[in-house]
Order: sequence, then structure tokens, then C-alpha cells
Amino acid sequence: MNGTNWQCNTATVEALGKVSTATLATQLFRRGFRTRFMQGVVPLKPGTRLLGAARTLRYLPMREDLDTLDTLGARTNAQRAVIEDIRPGEVLVIEGRSDLRAGSLGNILALRLQVLGAAGIVTDGAFRDSPNIRRLSIPTYAAGQNANTNLTIYHPADFDLPIGCGGVLVELGDAVVADDEGVVVIPGQLVDEVARDALEQETAEEFIYDLILESASVFDAYPMNDEMRARYRIWREGRNEEAR
Amino acid sequence: MNGTNWQCNTATVEALGKVSTATLATQLFRRGFRTRFMQGVVPLKPGTRLLGAARTLRYLPMREDLDTLDTLGARTNAQRAVIEDIRPGEVLVIEGRSDLRAGSLGNILALRLQVLGAAGIVTDGAFRDSPNIRRLSIPTYAAGQNANTNLTIYHPADFDLPIGCGGVLVELGDAVVADDEGVVVIPGQLVDEVARDALEQETAEEFIYDLILESASVFDAYPMNDEMRARYRIWREGRNEEAR
Amino acid sequence: MNGTNWQCNTATVEALGKVSTATLATQLFRRGFRTRFMQGVVPLKPGTRLLGAARTLRYLPMREDLDTLDTLGARTNAQRAVIEDIRPGEVLVIEGRSDLRAGSLGNILALRLQVLGAAGIVTDGAFRDSPNIRRLSIPTYAAGQNANTNLTIYHPADFDLPIGCGGVLVELGDAVVADDEGVVVIPGQLVDEVARDALEQETAEEFIYDLILESASVFDAYPMNDEMRARYRIWREGRNEEAR
Amino acid sequence: MNGTNWQCNTATVEALGKVSTATLATQLFRRGFRTRFMQGVVPLKPGTRLLGAARTLRYLPMREDLDTLDTLGARTNAQRAVIEDIRPGEVLVIEGRSDLRAGSLGNILALRLQVLGAAGIVTDGAFRDSPNIRRLSIPTYAAGQNANTNLTIYHPADFDLPIGCGGVLVELGDAVVADDEGVVVIPGQLVDEVARDALEQETAEEFIYDLILESASVFDAYPMNDEMRARYRIWREGRNEEAR
Amino acid sequence: MNGTNWQCNTATVEALGKVSTATLATQLFRRGFRTRFMQGVVPLKPGTRLLGAARTLRYLPMREDLDTLDTLGARTNAQRAVIEDIRPGEVLVIEGRSDLRAGSLGNILALRLQVLGAAGIVTDGAFRDSPNIRRLSIPTYAAGQNANTNLTIYHPADFDLPIGCGGVLVELGDAVVADDEGVVVIPGQLVDEVARDALEQETAEEFIYDLILESASVFDAYPMNDEMRARYRIWREGRNEEAR
Amino acid sequence: MNGTNWQCNTATVEALGKVSTATLATQLFRRGFRTRFMQGVVPLKPGTRLLGAARTLRYLPMREDLDTLDTLGARTNAQRAVIEDIRPGEVLVIEGRSDLRAGSLGNILALRLQVLGAAGIVTDGAFRDSPNIRRLSIPTYAAGQNANTNLTIYHPADFDLPIGCGGVLVELGDAVVADDEGVVVIPGQLVDEVARDALEQETAEEFIYDLILESASVFDAYPMNDEMRARYRIWREGRNEEAR
Repeated sequence: MNGTNWQCNTATVEALGKVSTATLATQLFRRGFRTRFMQGVVPLKPGTRLLGAARTLRYLPMREDLDTLDTLGARTNAQRAVIEDIRPGEVLVIEGRSDLRAGSLGNILALRLQVLGAAGIVTDGAFRDSPNIRRLSIPTYAAGQNANTNLTIYHPADFDLPIGCGGVLVELGDAVVADDEGVVVIPGQLVDEVARDALEQETAEEFIYDLILESASVFDAYPMNDEMRARYRIWREGRNEEAR
Repeated sequence: MNGTNWQCNTATVEALGKVSTATLATQLFRRGFRTRFMQGVVPLKPGTRLLGAARTLRYLPMREDLDTLDTLGARTNAQRAVIEDIRPGEVLVIEGRSDLRAGSLGNILALRLQVLGAAGIVTDGAFRDSPNIRRLSIPTYAAGQNANTNLTIYHPADFDLPIGCGGVLVELGDAVVADDEGVVVIPGQLVDEVARDALEQETAEEFIYDLILESASVFDAYPMNDEMRARYRIWREGRNEEAR
Repeated sequence: MNGTNWQCNTATVEALGKVSTATLATQLFRRGFRTRFMQGVVPLKPGTRLLGAARTLRYLPMREDLDTLDTLGARTNAQRAVIEDIRPGEVLVIEGRSDLRAGSLGNILALRLQVLGAAGIVTDGAFRDSPNIRRLSIPTYAAGQNANTNLTIYHPADFDLPIGCGGVLVELGDAVVADDEGVVVIPGQLVDEVARDALEQETAEEFIYDLILESASVFDAYPMNDEMRARYRIWREGRNEEAR
Repeated sequence: MNGTNWQCNTATVEALGKVSTATLATQLFRRGFRTRFMQGVVPLKPGTRLLGAARTLRYLPMREDLDTLDTLGARTNAQRAVIEDIRPGEVLVIEGRSDLRAGSLGNILALRLQVLGAAGIVTDGAFRDSPNIRRLSIPTYAAGQNANTNLTIYHPADFDLPIGCGGVLVELGDAVVADDEGVVVIPGQLVDEVARDALEQETAEEFIYDLILESASVFDAYPMNDEMRARYRIWREGRNEEAR
Repeated sequence: MNGTNWQCNTATVEALGKVSTATLATQLFRRGFRTRFMQGVVPLKPGTRLLGAARTLRYLPMREDLDTLDTLGARTNAQRAVIEDIRPGEVLVIEGRSDLRAGSLGNILALRLQVLGAAGIVTDGAFRDSPNIRRLSIPTYAAGQNANTNLTIYHPADFDLPIGCGGVLVELGDAVVADDEGVVVIPGQLVDEVARDALEQETAEEFIYDLILESASVFDAYPMNDEMRARYRIWREGRNEEAR
Repeated sequence: MNGTNWQCNTATVEALGKVSTATLATQLFRRGFRTRFMQGVVPLKPGTRLLGAARTLRYLPMREDLDTLDTLGARTNAQRAVIEDIRPGEVLVIEGRSDLRAGSLGNILALRLQVLGAAGIVTDGAFRDSPNIRRLSIPTYAAGQNANTNLTIYHPADFDLPIGCGGVLVELGDAVVADDEGVVVIPGQLVDEVARDALEQETAEEFIYDLILESASVFDAYPMNDEMRARYRIWREGRNEEAR
């Protein structure tokens, strides 16, 4: 995967392609992180999943003389510049300032990102042309939808600097993982261990889920007491055998 | 139905299983209540309906030393304790403090409630694991979705005390009724009369609906003028005959 | 179309029936307007489109002695009066004061508007009976859903005066255009030129869309550079030929 | 007093010049009113008191082509028109839409109102030139301060129609009473009785205050039990004697 | 001091009577606490300081049939009950649900608390009769001011249970310390050590303050580098000598 | 004045030291700018005035592993680095993300800035140690006060890049002017002309103020009609004579 700031091994990518953002949030909480899930950012359509390395775009409040239609074609326009620079597997993460009064991006730019192989687009602002963006295959996450052009409220400042998005600090190359619940950002140096432990947690939860279905009490099964834990270890072994 | 603080006759249960929350809100307004519909609490999936007696769970702001992963298994944990104490027909109503920065509950606890026969789960906070909760059959209502564990913002304080949820005072055993619009809570002593009058109101509105379809003016039909009211009484009689 | 304050020619109606609100927002921005898209107002169901001339209804905060169930049948009730006065092709736009604590309107009144041939209903408040309103064919847009009757928070003041809705000044007869993204309001005197230029813009964007699909850079294609613009003119001509 | 829609006797004016808004809110609550105190509207400087009859000014969201500097001098400008029409004893109440992004009015217009003998100015928006307005003697109440001209967000629509201000329905001629806590609006037909009962309540509370100072329990004194009430009647008589 | 759940030695009380809430917040942060300062709660007048042990009062949303003027005198009224039960040195902390649409408490009850020797009153709602409360000597902290009686929005539920106030978990007997910046709540078991270290921190900051006045760079002085720390130790010794 | 990106002549500095932010906002509006006044940012104490060239500090959401007490002394800490780099006449403007849950800066750093000759400090977040900051002479503007250390919510990212503050784009060297109403930021290239025209406007308003005091109508005086304008020119001349 391009653009990562983390050691990207196959097991990690496979794990992050499967586990839920809820599980990742738990693993991050275990490591002292409380605020790595973006507030209020949801997929544009159900059934969306995203995994990629963060590229960042920073928006500031617009200034009427700087942010005019004439500037859209300029190579110095940070929005256009970062889009043209995207490589496959990267996710464009936009600091939309939690401002929903305009769209951060419309469907033509979203299509360009899709053609370039981007893994997804994330903003804590809104999208415009959202009905058309919903028809694209690229995973998209936002806090709203708004037909107004980004020029009405935003000045595209720069890219690849650290930004804030949905209350989360996002650095270039951080792992961005999303499902139908929303978006988690994993700091680069933790990606491999978080991915591994998240997968292990979900395996245990699969076992717990079955216990609950068989009417186990949460006091016994979630978290597991000693007896359940022993049963789990046996089940876990059996499963590993099968897998071989 | 378990856990009610109201006289629970068959006609009441049948009526509350049918009428809309809008009709119930009107009946409550007729009795002087303006704030019995929860603000901002919606079903996790369309086509949801809920009826049950309230069990209450109170959340407070977390304190870092009290709210750790170690406490999840404790029998004194109010969240776990109330869940294990739920009986069929009861609805778990959570005071989530209108705080969407974390989930109030995840899918394993939701499954446990489903297995125990709970009538539903309601929070004015968020759920976590919401994509998995959507796959369960238990009716669920919330103000948002968030992957963060409840430990990041909540301290589970106690249960079965009166709480506030979505701006509504909820007492143990109150009737909780919900449809795709949201959640209404009926004080125990009023449940039977509100149910009866709501059903009568919907019968009349069925008649009015047909009048409107036939191009009646709202000045004549909604509310009905004397002539319409006379016609309604005849229609109503005829219908009762049929039903015999 | 009834009730317009704009010169309503066939080409305009045809164009406004097709173009997206995002395109209209861009055309309005070109003319110096930044705030003609309603904030937070979305369709009650996907696949909704609306075009009509604005009729306006103004709500104020309720006063307990004025806003009682007894007033619903009065011919002086501004809500009822404007509804009975609606003509085909008109859109009822309600100043709901961005207040979501009650519904602005329920399904029986919505049905009446549908029977009268109204082009749609727009509020920056909520609807009540929203599950039933969703079953109607009339296009409906709102900022929320709430079972409480409008009497709990609103006093219907008057109609056909200028109002604010979703942060937009709406005058009697303004063109209201909406799609799945939301609602744009075009001042009467600009409707024809905005419609014409919006259609032209969407034709160009169709061409650009194909360029992007063929891996053109946004620096070349969006906005188009001189070369692309030349190619576009030829394509445009060809298309016009076909159309003849 | 000019412009009242209430019977304005001397006792009423004297009472309303003394009693607190808290007392008035209690008297209104006794009559079924819960929302006659403006939310978030406070005096620009401490020690402010206001009493007058409401004149209303309605603001809508601005439209860029309508709300330009050129319109400020026009006699049709609703803001200027209502100001020039103010008579002594009237209060200008502005529907500022709870929008604090600009000022509703600046110090020159405030001065003009002071020269005309206006009893005060109230807005649920902001003032601009607020440091200079603070230097005037006219009582002023607002929800904020902002240097931006009203043209940046407002379109002055019309005046003397009913409006909403701070969540309160305000009709032409309603009694506006304000102290350091904020602003209460009394519907015209209730002004005299509310004024009379408010004065009586404050007399009783003076007595209660002394009881509390002498270490009476609130269970005995607030509300008064039978014994205290008897003592109060004697004290009240004595006081009336003195006053003769 | 009455009502504490902490070991209340003289040094602790002396220290907490002097140090700033900013210093206490730093000491709590050092121990892993990020959220012990109340959000948005400020003194009613400048120059206020408060120290006491928390008594808690819990408010819920009102219910029209439960929360009437008739209930004010009842001994079961939780608001009245807790007030009459207050002992000298205790602080009444009210869970006002961050709701500013009414007052939590008025001046007569505040006076009663003052007479009883309460150390202060804290709410994350509003006060009513705030101009009169400002004239009392009892320290008061709130998030706003509002003339509406608490019955318009609140149901007094119970007292001495844990509550949330300004986003902080408050337990019976916790130490409440406030200055002109706002309110910090220290969990009982930490009070002594936090008080001691806060005092030490302020002593060091006094030294640092003088260094900065003498043009020291923050890189050298704040935090102190080794050289400064050595100088500080000498200064600190000297001071201790003086104090003996 | 240090650090300006504008031509800083004496007349400009003199004018900007006198005129109100309301006048500057009008001059900016005349040039097409609607959003150069910071939303919600007010002086910590009355009687404050500020003029200087912007230095910018950018805060992002904190990350628990990056933002610890250990980092405070590091020369790479952007907050400390920009402070030590401040020159006389510069204003530190902080992008506090409109987040009031912690302080952006405390009194020791504020003192350091004062010692270095900074013209002021502006944040759209809060200050901590605000009671002590109020005792300093350096002009300070913020949106709130909060005792929590900035580490609880902020990561100091970098400095001297363009930022957003209070909804305003602020670039290195922009002119920052503030009075008791709040803060205006003037883009560098416009400073001289805006200053000159603002001074001229205030001279005219002085004349208008006297007209209003003499009972002129706003229709005649504000804006001035031809007659008034003629009188003004004479008065203006006379004044200029005097000044010579």
C-alpha cells in the first residue's frame, strides 16, 4: 500500500480489512487513546468499508478576494494539487472544520480520485453532488451534504501537514480504517500490533457471541470468567488446527 | 407484560402495538403533556416498532480511575447488572446524556438483551457496533453511532431510578412505545386511557383520510365539522357492526 | 406553473427539472449569491425531486393561550388557510425556525396538499407522522422528524410574506428546486438565466466527466484548458447536430 | 405610555417599574405560560431596567442583491422606517434570529431611538458599536456583540407584525419588562393582573426573606405554612396602615 | 469541615483556600484526570472563591403533572429536602443538565443556604433572581441566568447520589474548589496529596514568574532547566528559613 | 511595527489606534469582505484595545502519546517556539478550534509575551489562569476561560502558517485590530486604505452623531442627504483649518 508511515505487512492489511472500527477503538483505548474515532463522520451509503494511508488536505475559512472561481484551475490550488498527487491505496482526509455550510468536494474530483486508485475520501465537512458521489464506487465518508461550492466557505491552505478531522489528529501516512459505523485513525507506529490484537479480539468475540446465543450470562461470558476462558482456549486451538 | 407500572389489559397492549407515536403525542398533549416524545432518538433501521415497560440505566460522566476495562466484569457494574436483571417485555432505557462521543452499548450486550426477551433498547446517546446491532431483531433506538467504548465518556451509575432520556422523564415501568418516527413514554397511570383514545383517534383519522382523498377541505374534515361528524358516526357504527 | 414570480418558459421548466442543486448553487455563486441552498434540509426519502413556485408559511414561538386544539379548525389559522389556498405547481415553504422539538405538519395536511396538486412541502423544522408522509407521492423536505403536534412549539402567524427557511430568504413565487442533496431557492428575476446556464454547465460537465474517466488530469479538464475547451466545442456541436 | 395594547393604569406602571422578571415569570407560570422570558438576552450593562410597549422589527436572512449599502437611506428600509416611527415609551424589539454573526443595530440608530424617547431596545441577535451603545442611557438588551454590519446577514423585512424574539412570541403593544436578569414579555390582556399579583408576591417575599434571615426553615416559610401565613396577614395589615 | 469524604487536615484546607483552579487542574492531569474542571460554569460575580464538600441534587426533565406549584412545600421535594439538610462547610452541587431555559434555584433558597452556613452553590444550569443572588455573600457558580421557575423544565429527583455537573462526575463529599475561573472537583481520596502538590507548584511558579519578569526564556524557566532548578532549591530553602 | 506584511506608515498606525472595529468592519464590507470580524472572541477585561501584526500558532486535537507534560520544555514545541520568537508589536493569534474545554495558554506564557513586547494575544479557544491574566497589562482576547491545561485537548502543530481563528483566515503579518467589541483582521495589502477610510468615516459619524443629538431624522442624516452632506463639507473644512 502506498503512502503509509507504518510497516505494512500482509497480515496487517488482511486484519484491517476485516475488523470493525468498534474493535479497533477498544484496542486503541487499551493503549490509552480515547479520541481516535471521528465524531459525526459517516459513510455516504451503507455497506462501505475503507482502508488506506492518510493524505491530508487543510481547509481554512475563505477570504472573498482569494477564493474565487478563477483560482480553481491554478496548480497552486492545494485541493487540486493533492488530488493530482494521490497514489493508489491512499485516502484523502480533509479538515473540513466541522462546517456543513458547503461541500468540501464534488463528484468530478471524487471521480478523479477513484480513477487514480485512491482508497477513499474522508471529510468532517460535507460533500456536494452527493447523489452522484453515491453512485461512484470509491468509499466516501462525511458529516453532511451541501450543494454550495467549497469557495463559499473554504480556503484550501496546504496538504500533507498534520490536520484535525472529526476531532482526531491525522498525520500523513496514518492508517485510516472505516466501516458503516465511521472512521478510526491509527497512529503509524501502532498499526501492526493494533491490527493483530483486534483480530484476536474479534475471534474471542465470535466465541462469546455463541455463548450468549446459548444463554450465557454476561457475568460469565463478557468478559469471560476462568472457566469460559479455558473453554475458549480449547475452541481456539481447534480452530487453528482446522485452519492448517 | 413484565415490569409495568400500569394496568396492562389486552386492549391496551393491542392498541399500543398499532397506533403511531404522533397519535400518542396528540393524546398526551390533550392531557397537558408537551414533552413526552424523545428529542433526536431514532430507530437504527426502518420498519422498527417497540412496546414495553421501562427499565432505566443511568450514566454519568466517566472518571478515569473508576471507569477502566477492569470494571467490566464486576457484578456491581450497573450496566451489566441491569442487563442481567431484564425480564421479557421490558425495555432498557439509558440516560446517555445526549452525548454522542462514544457508544452506550455494543452488539454483544444487545444480543444478551435479545436472548433475555427484552422488548427493546433506547438511548439518547449512541450505539457502538451499530452495523452488527442492525442485524439483530431486537428493536433499537439511539441518537447516533460511535465506535468508542462507553468507558471513554461514561460512568454507569445505577439502575431503576427515574432518569431523563431525550428530554423526557422516564420512571421505572412507564410504557415505552416507538415507531419509525421515534419514542414516546407514557406515564403509568395514563397508559390505558391514552391507548384507548389513541385507537379511537386513528379510527377517525382513517375516515378523515378518505374524505381528504375525495377532495374534502381541511376546514370541513380536519377537524370534522358537524356534518362530517354525523357522517363519521354512521360510518363508525357500520364498522362496528362488521366487526361483530 | 402557478404562482411564480418569474417568467416561466418551457425551456426553464425543462432545465430545472433536470439539473442538480449543486449546479444551481454554482450558477448562483457566479452571480454573487452564497446562501441560497437551505442548511440541513433533506428529502424524507431518496429519489426525491421538486420544482415549484414558493408559497410561504410563517411560524412563531407558540403562546399557550393562543395555540390550543380549539384553534385548528379556525379559518383564520394561517397553516390551514395557506394549505386550502394552494394551487397546482406551488410549493409550501414553512419557516420552522430550525426547531426540531415538534412537527411543522402531519400526514393528513400533507395528503391534502398532494390532492390539491402541490409540487412539494419544505420546512426547516421537522415533520410529524413522517412514516406515513414517506408513503405519499408528494415531494417532502425537512430537517427532522418529531411526533409532537405543532401546537407544542409553534404559533402559525401568517402566509405569503417573505420568510427565512434553512438560512435562505424565500419570497412568494421564488423558484424552489430540490434533489436528493437538498433545496435551492432562486430569486424570481434570475430563474430563466440560471436555468439556461445550469443546463449548459451540466452539458460541459458531462464532457469533463468522460475526460476524467479517460484519466485526464483536473488541471487539464476541470476547469478545461484551451485544448480541452476546443475539443469540447467540437463535441458540443456534434451533439447539437444529433439533437436536430 | 404610548403604543400599549393593554389598559395602562398608574398602579400597573408603578408595579412593573419595581418587580423583578423572576416574579413576573412566576405569575405568568401560574397562568399557564412557560416561555415568556427571553432565552439568552441580557443587558449591555449592569443596573439596567426597562418598561415599555413593544414595537416589532422583523429580520430575515440577507440576500446579496437586496441588502447593500445603497439601501440604507431608503424610506422603505424597514429598520429605518420603524425607528423613525417610534414614540416615547415604546421598546423596539428585533427578531434577530438568534444569529450572532453580525450586529442588529449600531450606536447611531440607538442614539436616534434615545432622542425619540424610546423606552429601550431588545434583540436576540447582537449589537454592533456595543462599547458606544454602553455609553448611552437608553436600556439595551442583546444576546451578543459583533462589529459586522447587519447587511452581512440580515434583510430587514417589515415591522409591527408579531415576531419571535429569544423564543418568545411578541405582539405589537405587548408589555416588555426587563431587569439585570433579562426580558419578560407580558401579553396585553394580562398586564394589569400580572402587575398587581407580582407586586403582592414581592411583598410576601419581603416578609419571607426576613423569616429566612431569622433562620426559618423553607418548609415553614417558603411557601408559608398556615402559621406563617397568619403572621404575614398581620404584618401586611400593619404595613398597609403605615402606608395610609 | 462537614460532609467531606476526604481526610480533612488543616494544611489541606489552607492550601485549597489559596491555590488556583488552574494549578489544581494541572495536578489532576498529572494523575491521569482530564475532566475535573466544570465546563461553562462561572462565578456570578468577580472575586468569588469557594471551598467545601459536595452535597448533590439531581434534576430530571419536568413532567407537567408532577411539577406544579403545589409540590414546592412538600417535604418530599428533593430540592427543599437537601437544602434543609445542609451543614456548614458543604456546597450544594446541582445537576442542572446544562439547560439554561430556567433557573435551578432562586434568591430565597440561596439565602437559606447562606444562613445555614453552606460554603457555596454550584449548578451547570442557570440561577433565577440572579441580581438578588449577586447581593448575597454566599459564593455562587452557574452557567447562566434565567427568570423562569425551575418547575418549567426540571423535576427535582433525589439528592446525595453521584451526579454529573458541567461534565464532571461529582460524588457526595468530593472537594469542590472554585475561583474566578470556575470550579474543580477533587475525588475524595486524592484531596490531601493534590492540595499539597498544588501548593508546592504555586511556590515554584512564583519563582518562575520572577524569572520571566527578569526576561528569562520559557525554555530555561518554564519548565525550569537544571540550572534554574538549582537556583530554585536555594530560594526555596531561604524562604522556608524565613517562614520559621 | 515588527512583523507586518503591510506598508506601515504613521498615519495608518495612528488611525488604527483610534477607530472602532465596527467602522473597520464597514470599510471591509465596502470592499466585499463579510467575515473579517472574529466570532465570539472578546477582551478579558473592559477597556482593552489592540493593534499589531499577526504571528500565528496552530493547534490540532491532542494525541495522548504526543501531548504529555514531558513535551513542554522541548524546543520543538510549537507553542513555546513561537512565543520565544515574538518581537515587539506582534500579536500572537492562536487557532484554538473554537474549543473551550481547556485553556490555550496560561498566565506565565502570557507574561513572557508581555515582557517580549508583544502587542497582544488572541485565541478562539479559552485562556487558563484567566484571573491572573486579567491582572497583566498585555491585551488579551478569547472565547472563554478554562482551568484545564492545553495538553488535555490540544497538540501544538506549527506556527506562522495561515490559520483560522473565530471564523477568520489569518495570515502571517495581517493587521489585527481590537477594541471592547472584539477583533478584526485586515489583509495586509488593504491596511493603509482601510485605515484611512475608516478614519474619514468616523469623522463623518461624529458630525452625524451631533445631527442626531439635535433631533435630525436618520432619513436625513444617516446616511446624509445632499443638504447634510453639504453642511458636512463645510464643517469638515472648518475642522481641518483648526487642525492646521
